[in-house]
Amino acid sequence: MSSMNDILDAAQVASILARVAERRPRVHCLTNTVAQNVTANMLLAFGAVPSMASHPEEVAAVAAGAGAILINLGTISPEGERAIPKLLAVARDRGIPLVLDPVFVELSSIRLQLAEDVMRLPGVIVRGNATEMAALFPVMSGANGVLRVTTGKVDRIEGDGRVVTVSHGHELMTKVTGLGCASSALIAACLAVETDPAIAAAAAITAYGIAGEIAAERAAGPGSFAMHLIDALAGLDEAALRARMA
Amino acid sequence: MSSMNDILDAAQVASILARVAERRPRVHCLTNTVAQNVTANMLLAFGAVPSMASHPEEVAAVAAGAGAILINLGTISPEGERAIPKLLAVARDRGIPLVLDPVFVELSSIRLQLAEDVMRLPGVIVRGNATEMAALFPVMSGANGVLRVTTGKVDRIEGDGRVVTVSHGHELMTKVTGLGCASSALIAACLAVETDPAIAAAAAITAYGIAGEIAAERAAGPGSFAMHLIDALAGLDEAALRARMA
Amino acid sequence: MSSMNDILDAAQVASILARVAERRPRVHCLTNTVAQNVTANMLLAFGAVPSMASHPEEVAAVAAGAGAILINLGTISPEGERAIPKLLAVARDRGIPLVLDPVFVELSSIRLQLAEDVMRLPGVIVRGNATEMAALFPVMSGANGVLRVTTGKVDRIEGDGRVVTVSHGHELMTKVTGLGCASSALIAACLAVETDPAIAAAAAITAYGIAGEIAAERAAGPGSFAMHLIDALAGLDEAALRARMA
Repeated sequence: MSSMNDILDAAQVASILARVAERRPRVHCLTNTVAQNVTANMLLAFGAVPSMASHPEEVAAVAAGAGAILINLGTISPEGERAIPKLLAVARDRGIPLVLDPVFVELSSIRLQLAEDVMRLPGVIVRGNATEMAALFPVMSGANGVLRVTTGKVDRIEGDGRVVTVSHGHELMTKVTGLGCASSALIAACLAVETDPAIAAAAAITAYGIAGEIAAERAAGPGSFAMHLIDALAGLDEAALRARMA
Repeated sequence: MSSMNDILDAAQVASILARVAERRPRVHCLTNTVAQNVTANMLLAFGAVPSMASHPEEVAAVAAGAGAILINLGTISPEGERAIPKLLAVARDRGIPLVLDPVFVELSSIRLQLAEDVMRLPGVIVRGNATEMAALFPVMSGANGVLRVTTGKVDRIEGDGRVVTVSHGHELMTKVTGLGCASSALIAACLAVETDPAIAAAAAITAYGIAGEIAAERAAGPGSFAMHLIDALAGLDEAALRARMA
Repeated sequence: MSSMNDILDAAQVASILARVAERRPRVHCLTNTVAQNVTANMLLAFGAVPSMASHPEEVAAVAAGAGAILINLGTISPEGERAIPKLLAVARDRGIPLVLDPVFVELSSIRLQLAEDVMRLPGVIVRGNATEMAALFPVMSGANGVLRVTTGKVDRIEGDGRVVTVSHGHELMTKVTGLGCASSALIAACLAVETDPAIAAAAAITAYGIAGEIAAERAAGPGSFAMHLIDALAGLDEAALRARMA
């Protein structure tokens, strides 16, 4: 097991962030209606571009030009269920990287089945909390080339025999809805510009966690924290990364 | 008619808030897509945990472990219509308290019919504004053990022969979307830890109104008010309640 | 081509804003789930009242009493597709002005078809960015009495042989999701109180752009900008308009 600093330094994180800001990848998000707004705002603050079509008859056309795809099961609907196979086909045909966020998968057999369907695609990145990842573990073990990103007090990135930990962030990040969902979208944005999925995930989670630390110093509670987090993410530079990663 | 102070003092409100913070009840919300985000953030600031599944095939499984259920008709969809009977069955079978928020019921016969369906469950708590409550009055009068919470400049809690009024809050609370909807969710959170529904509703509405008064003193308009309201609710303690309830 | 100042001065913009604040028109929005919350909050800050029903069986009843209707294609669903003809019928029968926001119309043939359907109604106001408006140009040219509002660094209002430009706003307005969608709703609010569609659109876009300029001076990034924009819009008065329009 290595800590993030062993595989990635501030200059590398800054370089990935700079590529996102320069190429402005579009991230197509089939995500829950609670987190859509904060996810879109976090992507914009990161320099990426969100799109959120979910209609089964158009989702493939809209996602086709995206640099990465996010599937989040948070408020999955019958319509969303029909959209998922379309997104999987586009991802496979065009080689678009795909992130799965299995919200509350432990509570619903529909979500477990959908997660299994998604993981038939090789190389999926899964981001969830410890409970969700434990419920999905049997499925992920049998899937082809899954990268597992378990976020919590310490984040763990596991796959391909490697385990990397990231220790940034702040407890207020658990007090605002959709911030975990948004982190999955930021991982997707980094995957659009970085081919090594573990590096992409580590960069996204490190940058997000550091933005959270900065925001927590400015916040008077979870309401103001959400605003400062977006500001901090938008203003993150290599100097700030370097100071916090030291 | 009694004022809230006759039935509940600051220590009792603080005790209910402490129980929410300690037990962290999950409130399952079938609510409108406009208010989902602010509702979830308000529940988190209150110490509760939101879940928002709406898929008719999974909503019962997700709601089964909740401490309370909220049904809000604000952007009711065909899918939501099919989810409601599932939620009613879970509430009945497991004795989970249920809050109904009949948004714009005066404008739609579908909403009126759904409200009637919900009120076949005994002991529903209904929270609405004066127009909505007037439109629903005939239905509520015939229903079994409904507690009526009419919010406005002065809030009225009525049922079981009692009438209690609450006079907290601020006019800016009508200038931010979803704040009424969120108050219904906070009532649900209190119902998860307090068996007397009038006491639970009065505690939630008092705490929320006082948080609104504190936020209004810090706000420069409705945009900053929304943020300060979440911060104030998250930071509310017995001393603040006592000072405002005196 | 004339600049906005040639057709509208600060007193006229203030007069339209005062009419909105006094009459409190309801704007019925069939809009995307990403932008619903910020759209509703912007309408409330403007003095208008949002309603957002989308159920095909009730949308006509809810929209019937509205002063204006907005159709935004951002996350169009099969249900939304069925709601659109109902909204068009209500708009036609009752003479309610209608604004179309053709989000990402260039990416989806479903959206292009729906935009065509909407523009069979005479006198539709279309608000989009340059890419969307270019994709729709052939359809708009053949439609009856369309007013085209193309927003960007300089906004252009075109129709009926007139071209008016508006040069207000700030680059941060492109860094927060839903702010373009919300501008379409503000145009709708002005249409509810002003019969000349070009004047209504120019007033809405000028007020919004000026609120954006004020907010940018107070903001530390896109997160705080969103909050300050709502506050600035709610606090906008003739003196502020006059100072910025000089």
